[in-house]
This record gives sequence, C-alpha cells and structure tokens, in this order.
Amino acid sequence: MSKTEITIYKIGGGIIDDAAELSKFLQLLAGTSGLKLLVHGGGKGASTMMRELGLVPQLINGRRVTDAATLDIVVMFYAGKTNKQVVAALQQLGVNALGLSGADGNVLQGTKRPVKDIDYGFVGDLTSASVNAAFLQQLLKAGITPVLCPIIHDGSGHLLNTNADTIASAVAVALAGEFDVTLHYCFEKNGVLRDINNEQSVIAEINSDSYAVLKQQGVIADGMLPKLENAFAALNSGVRKVIIGHALNIGSDLHTVLCLK
Amino acid sequence: MSKTEITIYKIGGGIIDDAAELSKFLQLLAGTSGLKLLVHGGGKGASTMMRELGLVPQLINGRRVTDAATLDIVVMFYAGKTNKQVVAALQQLGVNALGLSGADGNVLQGTKRPVKDIDYGFVGDLTSASVNAAFLQQLLKAGITPVLCPIIHDGSGHLLNTNADTIASAVAVALAGEFDVTLHYCFEKNGVLRDINNEQSVIAEINSDSYAVLKQQGVIADGMLPKLENAFAALNSGVRKVIIGHALNIGSDLHTVLCLK
Repeated sequence: MSKTEITIYKIGGGIIDDAAELSKFLQLLAGTSGLKLLVHGGGKGASTMMRELGLVPQLINGRRVTDAATLDIVVMFYAGKTNKQVVAALQQLGVNALGLSGADGNVLQGTKRPVKDIDYGFVGDLTSASVNAAFLQQLLKAGITPVLCPIIHDGSGHLLNTNADTIASAVAVALAGEFDVTLHYCFEKNGVLRDINNEQSVIAEINSDSYAVLKQQGVIADGMLPKLENAFAALNSGVRKVIIGHALNIGSDLHTVLCLK
Repeated sequence: MSKTEITIYKIGGGIIDDAAELSKFLQLLAGTSGLKLLVHGGGKGASTMMRELGLVPQLINGRRVTDAATLDIVVMFYAGKTNKQVVAALQQLGVNALGLSGADGNVLQGTKRPVKDIDYGFVGDLTSASVNAAFLQQLLKAGITPVLCPIIHDGSGHLLNTNADTIASAVAVALAGEFDVTLHYCFEKNGVLRDINNEQSVIAEINSDSYAVLKQQGVIADGMLPKLENAFAALNSGVRKVIIGHALNIGSDLHTVLCLK
C-alpha cells in the first residue's frame, strides 16, 4: 500500500515580517491539497521589541544568543503572537490549524546546546528522535494542520529557542516512516539559481549526482551550501523530495526540486 | 453506564504572578487523579510590559479595554509566555499538557463584544456553544491535559481577549454532555467565607436552597455574588459540582462545594 503524501512547509522571518506577503502565502497554502504541516521561523519583531524594552539583541554567526530575558521575548513572539496570528488566519481560510511549541503534547523535546566556544544560552538542539511523530500523526489523521513555532522544550521545564529549518527537517525525517514526505523550504528566492543575480536561472532539479557537479563548479556556495547539505541529509533519511523556492510560488512549478539518485 | 469524571480547574492572575505559588499549584495539579483541563487567566505581566513600552493599560469596571496594540501584548503574554511556561512545567511533572488558544483546533470560537455604552475593543464573548467539545474529548481520550489561555478567535482571523472564568464555565457546560464535570475555581481565599475576615469560616457546602438564604442574610454579597451566580448557572446547565477554594488547597477538603438541590 502506498503511503499517504504530506508536505512540510517551512517559512522564515522575511515573510513573517511582511503582513501582506504572509497573508498571500497563507491563502496559497490553504489552496494546496493533501496533508500539510507548517513550521515558521522568527522574524525581526522580537528584536524590535527587545530594543524598545532597552535590551540588546545579540547575534553570533547569524544565530541569536538567548539569555533568560531574550527567551521570554522570543517565546512571546514566536509561540504567542506569530503562531496564533497564523493559526487564526488559517482557521478563517478553512484550514483547521493547531499551533504548537515543542512543549505542547511533548511534540519536540530536545536538549540545551552545550557550551563550547560560545554560550548560546537557552538554545535547543534536536534530531528526528526528538519528534513525537505518533502525536503528529494522530493530529493529521484528525484533519488538523499542525503549525510549529521555533520553540522546543527539554522535558525539565525549560523552553528553548531553536532553528526552524532544523525543526522542519527533523519533523520531515520523523514522519517519513509513516508518510510520503515532501519538505518544502520557502525563502526569498525562486529556487537554487545558476546565476545568483538572475532570478530566472532557477535549476529545476538537482539530484545527488548533479549536486556533486554543481558544488565542484562553484555554482552552489556560501549560504546555499548548508541548506542543500541539510536537504540531502533529509533525503538520505527517508524524505522523498525537498523543494526550495519562493513562498509565493508554492503550488506552482517555479522552484528547485532536490532528490536522490 | 456512568460517565467518566473530569475536573476543570481555573486559575487567575494572582497565582500566575507568583512563580513559587504557581509551581506549587502545578505540582498539586500533577498529583490529582483522573482527567483534567486547566484554564488560566492573565496576570499583571501584560500591563507591566505595556507600561515599559509606553502604552497605558485601560480598565473599565475591572475589565481590560483591548485596542490593537494591547491585543498584541496580551496574546504574547497569555498564549505565549504564560501558557508555554505552564505547559513546559506540567510536561516536567509527567502531565502531557497541550496549550491552546481558542484559534487552535478551532476550540473556542466566539464573537467580538458589541459596542454599547463602552467599546471594550478586541474582547470576545462566548457561550458553551462556542466550545469545540468533540476536539477536547479527542485530546482527553488521548491522555492529553488541555491548558486553555484566555484568548479566543472569531473565525474571521481575529484573536479576542476573553475572561478566563467565562471560558472555564463554557467549557464545563460543553463537556457535561459527555463527562461528569467538576468545575474548580481557584482563587486567593479558602472558599466562600461566612465571615469575610476569617479564613477559617469556610462554608463547606452551598446548595440552591441554602444559597437563597445566604443571599437574603447578606452573607454572600459584592464580588462573590456574580461568581456564585455563574456557578449556579453552570450547575443548572449540567455541571455536577462547582468548587471554590484556594489554589494551594486543591486535592484537600478545605473549600466550598456548590451543588443543586
């Protein structure tokens, strides 16, 4: 018997910070068929509020250092404002959405990142083993669309700020046993570009062979490299397809499809 | 066949503002047997943050006037910070808690309060018909303890600030068809007191007959009157028992039990 298909969409800060674009994306999402799950990232709102409160946001290598005061704010923003606004908007569009932090239903239990050179504070690491796949399956089978925010818990009463890309791939891998999983990363470009300055130069498909060539040619470099490494790691762990494209192109064919072979 | 018992606990702002007391309450809650559901109120944190951000909290007759900026803050506090901290703490205590705003799983869909003399802004009204009892039943049967915050939605994409006492009684009545429901209001006193200045003067039981007498004698007056009116309304709508007592006395016999007859 073939597995039921599910698409896991991940949206980042750029689209969350743009109310009009977020609204368009959610309409497109509501129009897609089949089971779905949404993971959303943070956005700039938390940093803006921190500054208004006299706190100084700290980033190291693009990652937020999360002390106790920062954690309070990001939990409020990500699990509170953003998550509930997205859920209410989806409900209006007829999608029975349910917002979740990792603590809710123990859906994502990870560990606080160990301090090595840098102390990132209340930041969580997780793997696909951290995902309560049985509970997500129950929700999906009940017709619910889970909406995950980038806050997890450690099982000892602490909330942890976590990267949304990592959550999306961990959830995709965890659900791959039961479902035929497509992991759809939405970002601000149309896909993986052959020429970074040309939005029309989207590479339609990359498989493991052509990926090796593109890396060698230097077409894939910089910020795109870790994204694709993570994508191929997910594919090697049972995810059928990874899509990278613009949030407002979901449902269309303008994007890059990554697959094995 | 007798119905399964469930207790719906409601805690208010006082206990939420006191981390040590909240922690003790959650430990007691985790120690109670049987199905349970928790409804929590707001607390002073949202007003404190508003002032820090240069906003002025407005209350009329003890009820918050909720403009758009205020709504953002209360959603962040109630659905974000408070709700997720409570859920994470319960998970640590072995209770599989799931935090919910009314938008999540469409669990509480109400209406924006009509403007009469006063415009309360984004404030929601609801009845037991607003409660998605089937979804709550599904969660409870899956071993989950729902934790509801005082934010509902209107089905048209708007979140609404709502009184937690009202949510607790609406949920209690909605679940009374399927369950044998006890509605347990926690507050800062040991129960309904015969002498307001004597915490030891708790009236152990009040039924509809003795309630009429106590009202006539003036023993029940002021703030306690609407509380008890709501309690008897819930009893008349199928709730088996209403308990009023101190949050740190749950599980003990020190409280007031309200029942019909």
